[in-house]
Amino acid sequence: MKLSRQQPLFRETITIQPENQSSPVRWITDWKTPDDLWYRRNHYPYPAPNLDGLQVVGVVQRPLTLSCEEIRSRPAKSVVAVMECAGNRRTLFRPRVYGVPWNEGAISQAEWTGVPLRDLLLEAGICSTAREVVFWGTDGEGEENGPFARSLPLGKSLHPDTLVAYAQNGQLLSPEHGAPLRLIVPGWYAMASVKWLSRIEVITEPFQGYYQKEDYHYYPFPDSDEGKRPVTVLRVNSLIRHPHDFSVLKTGHHRVEGLAWTGKGVIRRVEVSVDRGAHWYSAQLQQRPWHHPYAWVQWSWNWKTLQPGKYEIWSRAVDTAGRMQPLRAKWNRKGYGYNAVGRSRVQVE
Amino acid sequence: MKLSRQQPLFRETITIQPENQSSPVRWITDWKTPDDLWYRRNHYPYPAPNLDGLQVVGVVQRPLTLSCEEIRSRPAKSVVAVMECAGNRRTLFRPRVYGVPWNEGAISQAEWTGVPLRDLLLEAGICSTAREVVFWGTDGEGEENGPFARSLPLGKSLHPDTLVAYAQNGQLLSPEHGAPLRLIVPGWYAMASVKWLSRIEVITEPFQGYYQKEDYHYYPFPDSDEGKRPVTVLRVNSLIRHPHDFSVLKTGHHRVEGLAWTGKGVIRRVEVSVDRGAHWYSAQLQQRPWHHPYAWVQWSWNWKTLQPGKYEIWSRAVDTAGRMQPLRAKWNRKGYGYNAVGRSRVQVE
Repeated sequence: MKLSRQQPLFRETITIQPENQSSPVRWITDWKTPDDLWYRRNHYPYPAPNLDGLQVVGVVQRPLTLSCEEIRSRPAKSVVAVMECAGNRRTLFRPRVYGVPWNEGAISQAEWTGVPLRDLLLEAGICSTAREVVFWGTDGEGEENGPFARSLPLGKSLHPDTLVAYAQNGQLLSPEHGAPLRLIVPGWYAMASVKWLSRIEVITEPFQGYYQKEDYHYYPFPDSDEGKRPVTVLRVNSLIRHPHDFSVLKTGHHRVEGLAWTGKGVIRRVEVSVDRGAHWYSAQLQQRPWHHPYAWVQWSWNWKTLQPGKYEIWSRAVDTAGRMQPLRAKWNRKGYGYNAVGRSRVQVE
Repeated sequence: MKLSRQQPLFRETITIQPENQSSPVRWITDWKTPDDLWYRRNHYPYPAPNLDGLQVVGVVQRPLTLSCEEIRSRPAKSVVAVMECAGNRRTLFRPRVYGVPWNEGAISQAEWTGVPLRDLLLEAGICSTAREVVFWGTDGEGEENGPFARSLPLGKSLHPDTLVAYAQNGQLLSPEHGAPLRLIVPGWYAMASVKWLSRIEVITEPFQGYYQKEDYHYYPFPDSDEGKRPVTVLRVNSLIRHPHDFSVLKTGHHRVEGLAWTGKGVIRRVEVSVDRGAHWYSAQLQQRPWHHPYAWVQWSWNWKTLQPGKYEIWSRAVDTAGRMQPLRAKWNRKGYGYNAVGRSRVQVE
């Protein structure tokens, strides 16, 4: 069976208020996720359009207020990057954890176009007391823990690929994905890529906002906050798109297909096992990862199975930073960063 | 939180060839499932349109060939009936079973309009040697185990609510749901309601087709066919629509909402427990079930929870035939008829 787009595909509703919808990532063959199939992740109702442009303030020499037109008239940069919610595949943690019950679809990919954040920060002039940069969205203004805001360290803020983006796949951002301006932080989990961006603030102390200090941490223990660590860079990860978990196959040739991605370096290789890890075979990577370091890699492996029975197909990605997917994901109370080996259990008849 | 239709809802792709898509049943507040949100269940690719009308043949005194126009010109009957795939919620069986991995969405509801099958059979004149009636679809012609065909006992065939239907929710059937004609067998699992119906055949021996003799049976053992029993009438069942499994709630008042349905009699009551079955409380039924005996019932129960902690919300339906949902569904190899109590595990903060 080959993946195909003959049948209509849709997003799936995970929660309705606020709107959280997952992408049918398993079925999408397009390299860039079509706009109508992008996952949607919200902490609050959609905000009213921000017509006030973007402020760059805080410990800077020349505070800026820029209209969207001004930002769009500057030298632009485009980056293809995967966007993955930190809670993607939360439902796979054992013991189960509470939170938005994402299966595999809190992930999508686009070409982002915008202005390097670095250009704006350098134009404003960062003072020597600067320590972090805070990004304020307009979602959740006046609500508990709102508005949504996150900070980045100076280094990541000045990385040439960190963008203040206004376009997704060649179209101006939609209201659902942060219009008119959003941050894009390639290689980090998606909570860093603040949508509906209205203000950039350079600060001198670690940011204390709710989504920075409380939420989006790995809490290793069920009943204590000890050992909490912030969620940052994407873990090395992979997904089996075909065959489906618990599907029934005929004996013969099957093309095992999937995606792999990482936030550190690029995917070096993907391995497949059909005997619970006793043997691993190298999958073929369909796109040379170094052309688009932040993008996912499509991989495939041809499986010839002549013996009826029950099999577990596992996929394991390795990145150039030397990171490899574990057999079991590191449990954490809020269910972030699930990255155990991809797994499809099939019955061959 | 109230369920709401402010956000767009979609079907979810379960398999793509053939097309199997589930309905976002949890989120639909309409009493009749809107046509674009109906689940889709196929064994084969969609068949070409059948322009040859309907044959009634076999051991009958006057074989009939009827055009769709002739059928639509006869006295019509409408029935509101739930349609549930026998494999709905297959993913909840433990141990897991292989097959189309339906979660909760292989269920929808419509008002069906057509001609009572009984009228056609009586017009054709059933011979005294008749034992069963076979319904032939046009899907899967020339393919393995095809075309799709199923039989009914004479009694159910002659039931005044068993219809040869041409309309769903007041519109002519769509190609995806069996146009131009399909069978509707209220109160039975959906495999009985043969789509793309082209031929009705009265026979003298039990029908031996694949979907009648092999598939759609409860196989109680993993490795033997002993004790197999055919899938027929809908089991008594319920679903919690809100709150979502593994969601996080605030202390206070919550409206627990859901659906209940059965294939025998009507729903007599629905009970809710928040302490793993130690106490059960009666939910309010929002529609008087006896008006539409084959339709699902919406129910709700107001939960006041002041104590933070982890809770399991269970729902349990009882029908007028005295059947009650079990705590654990009866395991069977193909994963049919899941009907354990509805369950939502929530964390109250």
